[in-house]
Amino acid sequence: MLRFVTTNPGKLREARDYLDTEVEQLDYDYAEIQSDSLADIAAAGAREAHDVAGEPVIVDDSGLFIESLDGFPGPYSSYVEEKLGIERVSELALAEDTQRAAFRSVVAYADGETVETFPGGVEGTIVSPRGEGGFGFDPIFEHGGTTFAEMTTEEKNALSHRGRALAKFAEWYET
Amino acid sequence: MLRFVTTNPGKLREARDYLDTEVEQLDYDYAEIQSDSLADIAAAGAREAHDVAGEPVIVDDSGLFIESLDGFPGPYSSYVEEKLGIERVSELALAEDTQRAAFRSVVAYADGETVETFPGGVEGTIVSPRGEGGFGFDPIFEHGGTTFAEMTTEEKNALSHRGRALAKFAEWYET
Repeated sequence: MLRFVTTNPGKLREARDYLDTEVEQLDYDYAEIQSDSLADIAAAGAREAHDVAGEPVIVDDSGLFIESLDGFPGPYSSYVEEKLGIERVSELALAEDTQRAAFRSVVAYADGETVETFPGGVEGTIVSPRGEGGFGFDPIFEHGGTTFAEMTTEEKNALSHRGRALAKFAEWYET
Repeated sequence: MLRFVTTNPGKLREARDYLDTEVEQLDYDYAEIQSDSLADIAAAGAREAHDVAGEPVIVDDSGLFIESLDGFPGPYSSYVEEKLGIERVSELALAEDTQRAAFRSVVAYADGETVETFPGGVEGTIVSPRGEGGFGFDPIFEHGGTTFAEMTTEEKNALSHRGRALAKFAEWYET
C-alpha cells in the first residue's frame, strides 16, 4: 500500500488512474523547501512525509517554467499566481522574444531506504488568458492551439505533466 | 556564545555591531521552507540550524514587500531578482497606483528550548533603478529621496531592516 501525501483529492484520483497498486491519501501539509529544483523539493517532501507516515509515500511538485524568464515562476508558481495573477505573468512573457514554456511535475517516492524522483513535462506557449476551465495558469498555457483552460478534463489529463510523471513512477514501481 | 547561521560574512559583521555577546559564524546553508511569512521561514531555519549546531543560534530572513503586488516578491526576493531582474520588478510596481514598499527582515533565535522571532522593517518607494552601491533590490528602493544604492554603507546600515531586527533581538537577549 502506498500513501499519496497531498491535501488535494483530485491528485489522488489522477494517481489511481496510473497505478495498479492501492493508493490512499495522506492529508498532510508537509513543509516544502525553497529550491530552483522541483526534484529537490519533492525529494525533501517525500523524505519528511515518510518520517511522519512510517510507510511508503509519494508526493508531487509542479510548476510553470517560462523559457525567456529563466524558468520563472517555476517552483513558486502558486505564490506568484496568488501575488501577481496570471494576467501579469502573461504580459511579462508576451514582452519577450519567445513565449515558449513548459508545465513540469516531479513525483518523488520514499520508503525509508531509498528516495526516487520521476519527472514529467508538457511543452506549450504563453498566451493572453483564454478559456473557463482548469485552474492556476491553465488559461495562459496553450498547447496545440488550445489553452489548458479551453480543454475538457479528459483532453487535459491526456497531456498532463503530472500524469507523465505518475506513469514513469508506475513503470518503475510495478515492474 | 552565539552562532549566526549564514553563508554571508557581511551579515556577521552587522550582527557584531549590535550585540555585546560574542557571535561566531556558522557557515551552514540550512533548507529554507516555502512560506508567505518571513517569521515562519526564519523560525524553521533556526530550529533546524540548532539541531545541527547543538548550541544557541540566530538566523535571519529578509525580503522586499511591494504593497500593490500584495507583498511580492517577499520571501522569494532572491529567486525573483535572479529570474526577473530588478528592472522588470520596478516596471511591475510602476504600473500600479502606489509604489509603496518595505524591506523587511526577521531574526530568529533558537536554543533547543525556545524559538523567538524579531522583526525589523524600513518603508520606501519603488523607483526606476538608480545608484551603483548596495546589492539586490537596493537600486529600485528609495527612502527619503535617495535609493539604497545611492547611499554610503554607513547611511544604509543606519536604516537597515536587518539592523532593526538585530537591535530588538539584542535588547531581548542581553537584558
